[in-house]
Amino acid sequence: MNKTKSHIRLFLTLASIFLFVSIGNATELGHVVEVQKYNRAIHIMAMLLAGFGFLMVFVKKYGRSAVTATYLLVSVALPLYILKDSLGILGGSGSEIDSLILAEFAAASLLICAGAPLGRLKMGQYILLGLLFVPCYAFNEWIILDHGFGLIAHGSFVDMGGSVVIHAFGAIFGLGVIMTMTTPKEIDIPIEADDTSDRFSLLGSMILWLFWPSFCSALVAPELIPHTAINVILALCGATIATYFASIYLRGKIDAADIANAALAGGVAIGSTCDLASWPQAFAIGIIAGGLSTFGFAVLQGKVEKLIKGIDTCGVMNLHGLPGLFGGLAAIFIVDGINKGNQLAGIGITILVAIITGFVTGKIIALLGRRTAPYDDAEEFEL
Amino acid sequence: MNKTKSHIRLFLTLASIFLFVSIGNATELGHVVEVQKYNRAIHIMAMLLAGFGFLMVFVKKYGRSAVTATYLLVSVALPLYILKDSLGILGGSGSEIDSLILAEFAAASLLICAGAPLGRLKMGQYILLGLLFVPCYAFNEWIILDHGFGLIAHGSFVDMGGSVVIHAFGAIFGLGVIMTMTTPKEIDIPIEADDTSDRFSLLGSMILWLFWPSFCSALVAPELIPHTAINVILALCGATIATYFASIYLRGKIDAADIANAALAGGVAIGSTCDLASWPQAFAIGIIAGGLSTFGFAVLQGKVEKLIKGIDTCGVMNLHGLPGLFGGLAAIFIVDGINKGNQLAGIGITILVAIITGFVTGKIIALLGRRTAPYDDAEEFEL
Amino acid sequence: MNKTKSHIRLFLTLASIFLFVSIGNATELGHVVEVQKYNRAIHIMAMLLAGFGFLMVFVKKYGRSAVTATYLLVSVALPLYILKDSLGILGGSGSEIDSLILAEFAAASLLICAGAPLGRLKMGQYILLGLLFVPCYAFNEWIILDHGFGLIAHGSFVDMGGSVVIHAFGAIFGLGVIMTMTTPKEIDIPIEADDTSDRFSLLGSMILWLFWPSFCSALVAPELIPHTAINVILALCGATIATYFASIYLRGKIDAADIANAALAGGVAIGSTCDLASWPQAFAIGIIAGGLSTFGFAVLQGKVEKLIKGIDTCGVMNLHGLPGLFGGLAAIFIVDGINKGNQLAGIGITILVAIITGFVTGKIIALLGRRTAPYDDAEEFEL
Repeated sequence: MNKTKSHIRLFLTLASIFLFVSIGNATELGHVVEVQKYNRAIHIMAMLLAGFGFLMVFVKKYGRSAVTATYLLVSVALPLYILKDSLGILGGSGSEIDSLILAEFAAASLLICAGAPLGRLKMGQYILLGLLFVPCYAFNEWIILDHGFGLIAHGSFVDMGGSVVIHAFGAIFGLGVIMTMTTPKEIDIPIEADDTSDRFSLLGSMILWLFWPSFCSALVAPELIPHTAINVILALCGATIATYFASIYLRGKIDAADIANAALAGGVAIGSTCDLASWPQAFAIGIIAGGLSTFGFAVLQGKVEKLIKGIDTCGVMNLHGLPGLFGGLAAIFIVDGINKGNQLAGIGITILVAIITGFVTGKIIALLGRRTAPYDDAEEFEL
Repeated sequence: MNKTKSHIRLFLTLASIFLFVSIGNATELGHVVEVQKYNRAIHIMAMLLAGFGFLMVFVKKYGRSAVTATYLLVSVALPLYILKDSLGILGGSGSEIDSLILAEFAAASLLICAGAPLGRLKMGQYILLGLLFVPCYAFNEWIILDHGFGLIAHGSFVDMGGSVVIHAFGAIFGLGVIMTMTTPKEIDIPIEADDTSDRFSLLGSMILWLFWPSFCSALVAPELIPHTAINVILALCGATIATYFASIYLRGKIDAADIANAALAGGVAIGSTCDLASWPQAFAIGIIAGGLSTFGFAVLQGKVEKLIKGIDTCGVMNLHGLPGLFGGLAAIFIVDGINKGNQLAGIGITILVAIITGFVTGKIIALLGRRTAPYDDAEEFEL
Repeated sequence: MNKTKSHIRLFLTLASIFLFVSIGNATELGHVVEVQKYNRAIHIMAMLLAGFGFLMVFVKKYGRSAVTATYLLVSVALPLYILKDSLGILGGSGSEIDSLILAEFAAASLLICAGAPLGRLKMGQYILLGLLFVPCYAFNEWIILDHGFGLIAHGSFVDMGGSVVIHAFGAIFGLGVIMTMTTPKEIDIPIEADDTSDRFSLLGSMILWLFWPSFCSALVAPELIPHTAINVILALCGATIATYFASIYLRGKIDAADIANAALAGGVAIGSTCDLASWPQAFAIGIIAGGLSTFGFAVLQGKVEKLIKGIDTCGVMNLHGLPGLFGGLAAIFIVDGINKGNQLAGIGITILVAIITGFVTGKIIALLGRRTAPYDDAEEFEL
C-alpha cells in the first residue's frame, strides 16, 4: 500500500513536470507563431513604403511628393485603423499582431486608391483622403468578412489575400475619386517619365513582387504558408512572362511601365485563392492576370478615361481593379464547395460600396481645391 | 505484484518518452527563438546598409563616397565589436546572435556619428573613426548597462531600443568630432542636393522607417514583440504627421530633407520605452519627437552650428541627439517605479562620455588632414 | 484492486493528454521551422530581384532592360525548377519550401551567368537562356549533390552555401556563353556608367550583402544558423575592407564598381564552409576573396577578355568565378575529415559541365542573332 502511494506520488510529480513543460512549450509556441506573423507584417510594411511609394515615383516631376504622400497616407491609415479595431467598432481582431496586419491591409488599399488621383492632390488632401477612406474600407470589410448586416455568412467569402476587399476595393474607390478630381484641362497633358524615374519605379515594383508572398500568407496558418507562398510566386512569374509578351504584342515595343505594373497583377489575382489553388492553377491565374492587366494599360485605359472623363494616373484599375475582380471570380471555379451566390454577392457589394463612397469622398476632397495643371513638386516643396 | 511491476515499467517507459519529446521540443524552441532574433538582426542590417547608407546620399556630389563610407564603417564596427565581445572585454553577451545584434547597435551608433562630419572625411578617415568609436561606445555601454564602475545598477536604466546609448551617444560623439573637423571656409559652402539624390535619400529613410520595429524589439522577449512593434509604428506615424505640419509651419514649404529625417524621430524617441509605453503614449511621443526634430532642422541647426563653429552635415543632433535625449527623459514619466536618479545619471554620463571621447577622436582623425573644401567623389573615386 | 484500476485509468488519461500536447507541439514546431525557412526564402528573393537586378543597372543605357531581364530570368527559372522538382527529375527535394529554395538557388546561378553577356542579348534571348540554363544547372547539381552517375558520394561534397555549384557554375557557364556572343566590334566599345547608375548599382550591392547570411543559411539546421550567419557577415566585412585597400593599391583611385562587386566576394567564398568555419577563418576567407576579386577586376579581366575574345560585362568571373572556386578549395584546408578527392572532383566536374553546356547554350542563343553594337534600351523599349 505504501509502495503504491509512493508510486502515485512519483507519478503525480512527473505528471506535473510534463504538464508544466508541455504547456510552457505550447504557450511559447503561440508567441513564436505571433512573432512569425510579425515578420510578415514587416514585409508588408516594406511593400507599403518602399514598394508602393517608389512604384509611384514614375512621374519625374513629383518624386518627392509621391514619396511624401505615401508616408502621410500610411501614417494616417495605420493609427486610425488600429484605433477603430481597439475600440471594437465594425468588428475587432483577435490579437495585437492581427490588428496590425489588418491595419496594413487597409493602408495598402488606401495606397492603391491614391494611385488613381496621384499628381492631382496637394499633400493636405492626401491626409483627408486617408481619414475618409479608412472608415469606408472598414465598413466594406465588416460587411464582407464580419457578417455585417447579416449579408454574407461568416467565412463564406473566399478572399484570403484580398483580391477583392483590398485590391479591387481600393482601385474602384480611386475611380470614384477621380470622377470629381480630374479637370478637363488635365486630360490633354501627358505624364512624363524619364530614365531615372523609371528605374525607381521598377525598384518599387520589385519590392512589391518579392514581398507579395508575405502579404497573401500574412494570416494563413503556419502549415499552409509554404504552399501559399509558392502559389503566389508562380502567379507572379506567370504574370511577368505574360506581361512581356502582351506588351510586345499590343504595343510593338516593351513598355517599362507595363513591366513595372502588370507583372504584379499575378499577385493581385491569386489573392482570393492563394491558399487553396494548386500550383498549375496559380500559374494559370498569373498568366491570365498579366495579360489582362497589360491589355488594360495598353488598350482599355484610354477608352475608360474618355468614358468617365477622369485620369487614372497609375492605372490602378488595370493593375488592381480588373485583376482583383478576376481573382475573386476565379475562386468560383477553383474552390470546391464554394458558396457561389455569396462570392458573387460579396464582389457586387464591394464594387457598389467602393464606387459610391469613393465618389462622395472625391466630392469632399474637391472642397479643398481642384487642379487645372498637374502637380509639380515645386508647388509645395523646397527645391 | 507482477502486474504492478509491469505498470511501473510501462509508466517509466512512457514517462521517458514524454520527457524526451518535451525536452526536445523545449530545446528546439530555444533554437527557433534564436532564429527569430536572427531575422530581426537581418532587418537591422538592412537599416545599417541600405537605410543609413542611402539616407546619406542626399548630397549629390558624394553619392559614391557616402555609400562606400557606410560599407567601410559597418565592416570595421561589426568584427571589432564581435571580437571585443568574444574576448569578454567590457562585458560579453549571452549568445552568438545577441553578440551580433549588440555589434549592429554599435554600428548603428557609429553611422549616426558619421553623419555629422559626412563630406569632410576621406575614406581612410572613416576607417579610423570606426576603430576609435567602437571602444568608446562599448565603454559607455558597459557603464550604463553592465554596471561598469558600479555606477548604474544593473537593469535600472530604461533604454530597450537605445534612444540614449545608441542614438544620443552617436549624435553627441559626432558633435564632438565636428568641433575639430570643420574648417572656417566650409561654413559658407552650401550642401547641394538634387532631384535624384533626394529620392535616394527618401528611399533610405523609408528603409529605416519600416525596419525600425525590428531594431527596437531585437532583444525583446517573444511575448512582448507585437506590443513593442505597434508602439514603434505608432511613434513613427505620429512623427511623420507632425513633421509634415511642422515643416510647413516653420518654413512655409515642405522640405524633403525634413520628411526624410524628422519622420524617423519617432523611432528614435520611442526607443527607451518601446516595450513599456501604452499605444497612446507611443503615438504622443512620436508626435512630440517629430515636431522637436523638425524644429531642430528648421530653426536650431543654424544657431548651433554658429555656436560650436562646426557643420553637422546630416543634422544628426536634430534626428538622433534631441529625440534620443527626449526619449530617455520621457521614460521618467512613463515607466512605473523607474529609478529616476539612475535614469538621469545614465543620460548625463552618456552625454559626457560621448562629447569627450568624440572631441578627442576628432583631434586624432584631424592628424590625417582637415579639409577646406567639401569632399567631392572625384577626389578619391574613378568617375 | 479497484483503486489500482482507477489509477491506471487516470494514468492513461493523463498520458494521452501529454502525448497529444507533446506531439502537437512537435508537429507545430515542424511547421514553424518551415516558416522560418520561408523567411529566408523571401530574403533570397530580395537578392534575386532587387539585389542582382539593380547591381546590373550600372550601365546607364540599359537600366530598363537589365531590370526587365532580371524579372524574366527569375520568372522562367523558378517555375521550371519547381516543375522539374515536383516531377522528381534529377532528384527531388523533401518539402515544398526546400523546393522553392533550391529553385531560388538555380535562379541565382542563372542571374550570375546572365551578368556575363549583359547588354548583348535581346529580352527574348534571356528567356531562351533561362530555359536552357536550368536543366544544365540541375544536371550538375544532381551529379555533385545527389550522387548522379554515382560519381560523388552523397553528402561528401562540402558546399552548403553554393560557392561552387551556384556561383562558380553560373560564372563559368556565362564565360561559355560569351565566347560565342561577343562580336569583335564590341570589344572596343567601352561600357558607360554615370552618377545615377552607379548609385543604383551600389544599392543592389548592399541588398545582396545584407541578405547574404540568409542565402547561405537557407537550408542550415536552426541550431547552426547564428554561427553560420556571423561567419557570412565576417567574410563580407573582410572582403569589403580588403576591396577598399586593393582598389586603391591596384588603381590609385577607388573604383565604385570594385566596391559594389568585390565587397560581395566574401559571401561567395564563404559559401562552401559557411556552417563549418570558425570566425577567424571566415574573416580570413573574406579578406582573401575581396583581394582576389579586386585583382580580377583591376588586372585580370582585360587579359582574360583578350584571351577568350569575349566581354564579361559584369565581371562575373571576378566576383563569382574565382572567389567561388577559392571557397570550394578552402574547404579542403578548413573542414576536418573532408574527402579531398571528392571535393576536387566535384570542383573539376562543375567547371567542365559549366563550360561545355555554357558554350553550347551560347551557340543556340546566337541563332536568334548576335550584336555588333551594344544593346540600348531604345531598341526594344518605349522611351
